[in-house]
Amino acid sequence: MAQYIGIDLGGTNIATGLVSDTGRLICKVSLPTGANRDTEAIVADMARSVTLCLAQAPSTDGPIAGLGVGVPGAVDAAAGMVLRTTNLNWHHLPLAQMLQEHTGLPVFLGNDADCAALGEVLAGSASSYDSAAMITLGTGVGGGFICNKQVFSGWTGGGTEVGHIPMVFGGEPCGCGNRGCFEAYASATALIRQTRQAMEAHPDSLLWQVCTAIEAVNAKTPFDAAQQGDPVALAVLDQYMEYLAFGLGGVVNLLRPQVIILGGGISNQGEYLLTPLRKKMSKYCYASEFIAPPPLVSATLGNDAGIIGAALLGLNF
Amino acid sequence: MAQYIGIDLGGTNIATGLVSDTGRLICKVSLPTGANRDTEAIVADMARSVTLCLAQAPSTDGPIAGLGVGVPGAVDAAAGMVLRTTNLNWHHLPLAQMLQEHTGLPVFLGNDADCAALGEVLAGSASSYDSAAMITLGTGVGGGFICNKQVFSGWTGGGTEVGHIPMVFGGEPCGCGNRGCFEAYASATALIRQTRQAMEAHPDSLLWQVCTAIEAVNAKTPFDAAQQGDPVALAVLDQYMEYLAFGLGGVVNLLRPQVIILGGGISNQGEYLLTPLRKKMSKYCYASEFIAPPPLVSATLGNDAGIIGAALLGLNF
Repeated sequence: MAQYIGIDLGGTNIATGLVSDTGRLICKVSLPTGANRDTEAIVADMARSVTLCLAQAPSTDGPIAGLGVGVPGAVDAAAGMVLRTTNLNWHHLPLAQMLQEHTGLPVFLGNDADCAALGEVLAGSASSYDSAAMITLGTGVGGGFICNKQVFSGWTGGGTEVGHIPMVFGGEPCGCGNRGCFEAYASATALIRQTRQAMEAHPDSLLWQVCTAIEAVNAKTPFDAAQQGDPVALAVLDQYMEYLAFGLGGVVNLLRPQVIILGGGISNQGEYLLTPLRKKMSKYCYASEFIAPPPLVSATLGNDAGIIGAALLGLNF
Repeated sequence: MAQYIGIDLGGTNIATGLVSDTGRLICKVSLPTGANRDTEAIVADMARSVTLCLAQAPSTDGPIAGLGVGVPGAVDAAAGMVLRTTNLNWHHLPLAQMLQEHTGLPVFLGNDADCAALGEVLAGSASSYDSAAMITLGTGVGGGFICNKQVFSGWTGGGTEVGHIPMVFGGEPCGCGNRGCFEAYASATALIRQTRQAMEAHPDSLLWQVCTAIEAVNAKTPFDAAQQGDPVALAVLDQYMEYLAFGLGGVVNLLRPQVIILGGGISNQGEYLLTPLRKKMSKYCYASEFIAPPPLVSATLGNDAGIIGAALLGLNF
C-alpha cells in the first residue's frame, strides 16, 4: 500500500504529513515558514520537514509514492512551477524540481485551496461525490474545484479564483486591486467590516457587549450577538448571507458542482449558517425549479484538508 | 472517413447539416420548428431533416457515425435527456432515444451554446486552442466552455450559464427571475435598453438621427452613432464594454480558458469592440500582471457553429 507526503505551505507554517492512499493522515509535523528568508532556505526546510515527518511515522509501510505541495498562490502544475504567491514573494519558481533534488521523490504541485478541496472530496465532507466546489471563507475567499475527483484549475492553473468573481460593479475595493469582488463582500474580513459599520450606526446594539471594543470584532462576533437575539447582528448576518448566496449562485451557474463545501472559520457555524444560506442560494441558482441546487455542506477535515489533498495530488499521475 | 449529422434546434428553425470529421459543413437544410406543435411532430421533423440533408449530400462518402443535437436548454448528455428548454416547453424528454428510434443512428445531445463553442474550437476561430469559453451576446447571454476539446457543462449539464453569473447585487431584473445577472447588463437587449435610456436623457444626440424612432433602436445603433463621433453613443458603449469586461473577468477568474470567443451579432463589430474590451478586461482578470489574460477573438462560423459542434459531439464517444 503506497503512502504519500503532503506539504501545506503557508505564510506562517510548513505543515507536512504522511498520508495513506485512502486519505488517512498518519502523522504530521510543522515548521515555521520564516517567509522573509531566502527561497532556498525555505525550500530546504520543506525538505527537512519531510525527513522529520518520516522519522516519526509509526511504520514505513510500503514505499513513499510521491510528495505533493499545496502552495498559497498560482501554480502551473504541468510545469512544476510556482507562478506567483501572495505571502512568499515567489515568482516563476521551479519548486517541483528543487524539492525533487532535495528529496529524491516525484513532486506534484497544486494551489493550496485546490488541495483542500481535493482532500475534502477524497477523504472528507464530500467523499460521496465526484465533483465539488469548495469555498473557504477566511481573510480572503479561496476556492477549489474538483471534477471527476481531480483538480480543475484552468489554463496554467490560473482559474477557480472564486474570491474574484464579480459581485458589485464599482463596489468595495478588493485586495486584488479590483473593486466589487466576491471576496470584498463574503470573506471573514468583509463580515468584520460589515459588523463594525453596523456597530457605529447602532450604539445600542448588543454587539457592543459581545466584544470588548470595536477593534476586537472578529467573524464570530455577529454570530454570538445574533444568537442572543440582537436585531442589528441578525440584520448584518442576513445581508452577509445574501451576498454569500449571490456569489455561490454564480459558482453554481458557471461550474455546477455536485456539492458545495464551505470551509474556513465561518463554516464552523454549521447549520446556523447553512440552513438560511441554502434558502437564499436557491434563488440565485439558475432554473432551480428544474435543476436542484447542489447540496451545501461544511468542511470536516479542518486544516488537515490541505495536507491530505496535497499528498493525494500524486494519485492522479 | 466518417461523417456526422448535426442539428441545431432553435425555437424557429431546425437547422441540419452533414459535417466531415474535420468539421467541414458539407450541406445543410432547414425546416420550420413549429414550436407550438406536439413534441412527437417536432421530433419526427428533426428525423425528416436528417433524411432530407442526406438526400442532397454530394456523395455518401463513408458511413454516418452519429447524430448530434444542440438543444436550446439544459441537457443531461449522459442520460440523453432534455431537462428543460425555454422555447419548446420540453421537460425531462428522452430525446436521444426518440431520435435513435427514428433514424437508427447513435444520438448525442448537447446544449446549443456548448455546441457552438465546440464548433468554434474544432473548426473555427479557436481551432489552435484546446480550451475556450465562448460567450454569445444576443437576446440573452449564452455561454459554452470547452476543456481539452470536449464540452464541459457541469453536473447534469446545469453549468456554464454564463449569462447568470452575478454582476450587480440587487441590480436590473433578469429574464431568469433573478436580479443583477451578467445578461441583464451585457446582452444585446441590455445594450438596446442602455441606448434608449441615453437617448431619452440626451434629445440632441446623433443617436436620434441614426435610427428613425426610439422603438427602432437595435444593438448596431450605438455603434453607428459612435463611429460618427457622437459623445452620447461613445459613453453608452464605454459603459456597456465596462460591464462586459467585468463579467468576462469573472469567467476568466473562475474558468481560466486559453481563449475567449465572442459570438452573436455584437461580435460582428470586430476590433472596434475587441480592442477597447481587451484593455478593460485586463483590469478585471486576477493577477493579470503575472498571468496574461486570455486572448479575445470573434467567432467566425456564425450560425453554422451550432450545427458543426452538434455534429462533432459524437467525436468524443
